[in-house]
Amino acid sequence: MRLLFVGDVVGRAGRQILVDRLPGLVSDHRLDFVVVNGENSAGGFGITEEICRDFLDAGADAVTLGNHAFDQREALVFIARQDRLIRPVNFPPGTPGRGAGMFIARNGARVLVVNVMGRVYMDALDDPFRAVEREVEASPLGEQCDAILVDVHAEATSEKQAMGYFLDGRASLVVGTHTHVPTSDHRILPAGTGYMSDAGMTGDYDSVLGMDKDEPLHRFLTKVPSQRFTPALGAATLSGVAVELDDVTGLATAIAPLRIGGVLEETIPRFWMG
Amino acid sequence: MRLLFVGDVVGRAGRQILVDRLPGLVSDHRLDFVVVNGENSAGGFGITEEICRDFLDAGADAVTLGNHAFDQREALVFIARQDRLIRPVNFPPGTPGRGAGMFIARNGARVLVVNVMGRVYMDALDDPFRAVEREVEASPLGEQCDAILVDVHAEATSEKQAMGYFLDGRASLVVGTHTHVPTSDHRILPAGTGYMSDAGMTGDYDSVLGMDKDEPLHRFLTKVPSQRFTPALGAATLSGVAVELDDVTGLATAIAPLRIGGVLEETIPRFWMG
Amino acid sequence: MRLLFVGDVVGRAGRQILVDRLPGLVSDHRLDFVVVNGENSAGGFGITEEICRDFLDAGADAVTLGNHAFDQREALVFIARQDRLIRPVNFPPGTPGRGAGMFIARNGARVLVVNVMGRVYMDALDDPFRAVEREVEASPLGEQCDAILVDVHAEATSEKQAMGYFLDGRASLVVGTHTHVPTSDHRILPAGTGYMSDAGMTGDYDSVLGMDKDEPLHRFLTKVPSQRFTPALGAATLSGVAVELDDVTGLATAIAPLRIGGVLEETIPRFWMG
Amino acid sequence: MRLLFVGDVVGRAGRQILVDRLPGLVSDHRLDFVVVNGENSAGGFGITEEICRDFLDAGADAVTLGNHAFDQREALVFIARQDRLIRPVNFPPGTPGRGAGMFIARNGARVLVVNVMGRVYMDALDDPFRAVEREVEASPLGEQCDAILVDVHAEATSEKQAMGYFLDGRASLVVGTHTHVPTSDHRILPAGTGYMSDAGMTGDYDSVLGMDKDEPLHRFLTKVPSQRFTPALGAATLSGVAVELDDVTGLATAIAPLRIGGVLEETIPRFWMG
Ligand SMILES: [Fe+2]
Ligand SMILES: [Fe+2]
Ligand SMILES: [Fe+2]
Ligand SMILES: [Fe+2]
Ligand SMILES: [Fe+2]
Ligand SMILES: [Fe+2]
Ligand SMILES: [Fe+2]
Ligand SMILES: [Fe+2]
Repeated sequence: MRLLFVGDVVGRAGRQILVDRLPGLVSDHRLDFVVVNGENSAGGFGITEEICRDFLDAGADAVTLGNHAFDQREALVFIARQDRLIRPVNFPPGTPGRGAGMFIARNGARVLVVNVMGRVYMDALDDPFRAVEREVEASPLGEQCDAILVDVHAEATSEKQAMGYFLDGRASLVVGTHTHVPTSDHRILPAGTGYMSDAGMTGDYDSVLGMDKDEPLHRFLTKVPSQRFTPALGAATLSGVAVELDDVTGLATAIAPLRIGGVLEETIPRFWMG
Repeated sequence: MRLLFVGDVVGRAGRQILVDRLPGLVSDHRLDFVVVNGENSAGGFGITEEICRDFLDAGADAVTLGNHAFDQREALVFIARQDRLIRPVNFPPGTPGRGAGMFIARNGARVLVVNVMGRVYMDALDDPFRAVEREVEASPLGEQCDAILVDVHAEATSEKQAMGYFLDGRASLVVGTHTHVPTSDHRILPAGTGYMSDAGMTGDYDSVLGMDKDEPLHRFLTKVPSQRFTPALGAATLSGVAVELDDVTGLATAIAPLRIGGVLEETIPRFWMG
Repeated sequence: MRLLFVGDVVGRAGRQILVDRLPGLVSDHRLDFVVVNGENSAGGFGITEEICRDFLDAGADAVTLGNHAFDQREALVFIARQDRLIRPVNFPPGTPGRGAGMFIARNGARVLVVNVMGRVYMDALDDPFRAVEREVEASPLGEQCDAILVDVHAEATSEKQAMGYFLDGRASLVVGTHTHVPTSDHRILPAGTGYMSDAGMTGDYDSVLGMDKDEPLHRFLTKVPSQRFTPALGAATLSGVAVELDDVTGLATAIAPLRIGGVLEETIPRFWMG
Repeated sequence: MRLLFVGDVVGRAGRQILVDRLPGLVSDHRLDFVVVNGENSAGGFGITEEICRDFLDAGADAVTLGNHAFDQREALVFIARQDRLIRPVNFPPGTPGRGAGMFIARNGARVLVVNVMGRVYMDALDDPFRAVEREVEASPLGEQCDAILVDVHAEATSEKQAMGYFLDGRASLVVGTHTHVPTSDHRILPAGTGYMSDAGMTGDYDSVLGMDKDEPLHRFLTKVPSQRFTPALGAATLSGVAVELDDVTGLATAIAPLRIGGVLEETIPRFWMG
């Protein structure tokens, strides 16, 4: 089974490359399931119903979020009717939407997608470890489902790594988001879970976090805002991570990053080329 | 001109692979200058004079530090006599040691090494941007020196990226440290500066930040310490970044990560293979 | 009904004045119930069984804690057998001890004591608002109990104030701890809950947070530790807040600070003088 | 010599009581010099030229600021022509306005006013200790000036206390702002400096930090904004601290809080009543 996870799509440049390239990736490489983090897709802040629709139309099977989940207030409403939009599971009880969802992949497999937010250097939510564990224990891998993908939206690498080991052998893929920079520590953990600290963002890397670099630099230097942050509009990179799963165990047999376009070095999973 | 930067060496496993492999790398690939971040080399916390000596003997031309600079209190003393040990330049005035140093590379080039600490999600020091600028303006690239390497020890990718663009065209390499995870956003910025958000750590990646994973996981789950943190002792990865510099301008002409050993995917700069 | 809450006891100087003065206060002013925050009583860090015993012997009916709860590791053990020692209720499930306890006051009233930790600028625990609400809803004021005292151990005044209004009409007293400085915003909230943002510490105020001021000042100036923190040993202030409760509703009818000894201006609740 | 410092004025309610009551206080009690913190005076966020003018007309001799200094962008402009508006001295070099100013009091005394921002739990600026020391050393108390007032705009009580001791004997008054809650630790430090950890805010205390309490409470409970923060408009408290200074040394001979109006317990310095 073949999964692709795509990191935080930022603004128009990010949306463009996602919508342009994802359909071809899905068909060319027979991707069974695709998850896209969309928390920055609407001008860098949140997501709209239209954008979410576009991502699903382009081939995403689920869209995850993060600390920017509800920056566009319409998301508080349409998430109720959009089952494929998943917000962090450890938001307070009563938060609109769901933190986990079970979906059927193109190969018929049952895939559990969980989104969770870390707490180190972030606004505090409830315990991400226990929140994810509840979901994973409710639908154990290899029993109630055939694949489990966990998007850990967090700042600190320590918390992401701890989550990886916490879920090792119980999830197919634990992948970080939020720092907007891809890491190269993708690997299969000892008990079979695919892991990568951050999938990177999908947007223009000639920027600060995908946003035009002038204003962030201005703020670092002067400590006073000059204008709003706006997404950078140069050539974008589609950035993510691919895993191959064992059809029986749901554990990872191969993992590799995907980076297409823009200013980063391109890379395509070798196991897609077979 | 050929530079290598090696990220945070963690504990015995990290020291071992560094000392084992660095001499061969220097001779096999004719490295002109090597900088190693040593802030976690002594049991994960700080550096001793003996360890610093070992790194220099193994081929390091300078050793940089970070928030753990003075965890071993002897560093407050021996840094005064060890010119090649560089601590963050934006520590308060009066801090023992230097935040920048000029050294002669094996090819005769003058190399300025600067270490600076970010402030986002870290204990606040003085403005890292102005602190680095003072050093860089005092010895402009292509005039007073032939290469400038800046180790940005910081948590937030935004601050590292902003520093990269701030110094673009004025430094040879701006490389981040501190997150202990290598990023794959190495590239040459528009005005010629080599950049990578984090060089990764040199240590055992089957761990949390290079430390045995039991105690970090215990603390995330229980919020109560159980024992001290100790370095993980499995197979280590030597992780860093290599740049080729133009001998006239001191700007980067090529950049690539280096990862040898351990559980990460190995990679050697293609331009070393010529 | 007459309640006294005493803020964070720091080190020997704080313990001394508490043990010296509390018995007289209890008898002279016919205090029905006394709660003492003891998170810094053992050398500034945590609490031992012996110290806890001393506080109870001196007249405390319950001892609350905070982020330093388990700095003395013996507390992880003896808290299991010491019902009157209450740690933050929003620690993870499985943490030794209890986050709330019901006790019988000297006047026969049933008093619920809850300790909770804030999350703003503190290590993140689970939602303090819902955690407290669960306890308060399980034993509603005026029904299952005659008084409810909530110790909100938190850094940010915003979070403490929000907790006060959240519980207004549902608790007898919401009092903050942790900043180690008494506030003068004690008042009865609109629906009848006594409130004070911080009870202050019980210790030597000629200090930084009750600790000898040399080392804290050294660290602010140099960013490098020089030695351990040790409690200041000068004349201590016993600092707290007193409330009078309506015997039927359990709501506050009067509130006033208490400060005795040391370098702060003394004040005794006027309503104790009747 | 008689000084009054008034804490963060929040919104219309705060402005109203300040403008209503300050003229009478100045004339009734022969105040020689008055400083008002105005960082939240314009709808809770920053200050306008008109409001600043109103405060000066009402009897303020200087207006200090804080992290909200430039929330109203016009302040970046008019601060250049308004000598009596003082922003934190440790903002980056090049920031419009001044961080310290020398003014002549009604009794002819020369008063140095310094505003500085702490760094613990706040956006990092340069070292507040050295920044203040530069100002104080340039105009030593009892030599180049007759009184020195330092407004330490900071979150952590530890940093404020450390600043108090750092300046003890070198300033007339070190008073904290920013937490919006008055502390009752006003005292004269061993070497003669008046000190109080926080002057409290001038505004409606039936609120969260002076803002209508619904939205802050909503955000604590749901982690999602519902609307903008708006100042609470109920009866306000004018909150501050008064010091009497020795005319020769400029050190404090008496210190007491001032609280008038609103829901807090009123208090007027006894030494004003002579
Ligand atoms: Fe993001
Ligand atoms: Fe994010
Ligand atoms: Fe490190
Ligand atoms: Fe570090
Ligand atoms: Fe405390
Ligand atoms: Fe505390
Ligand atoms: Fe304020
Ligand atoms: Fe403020």
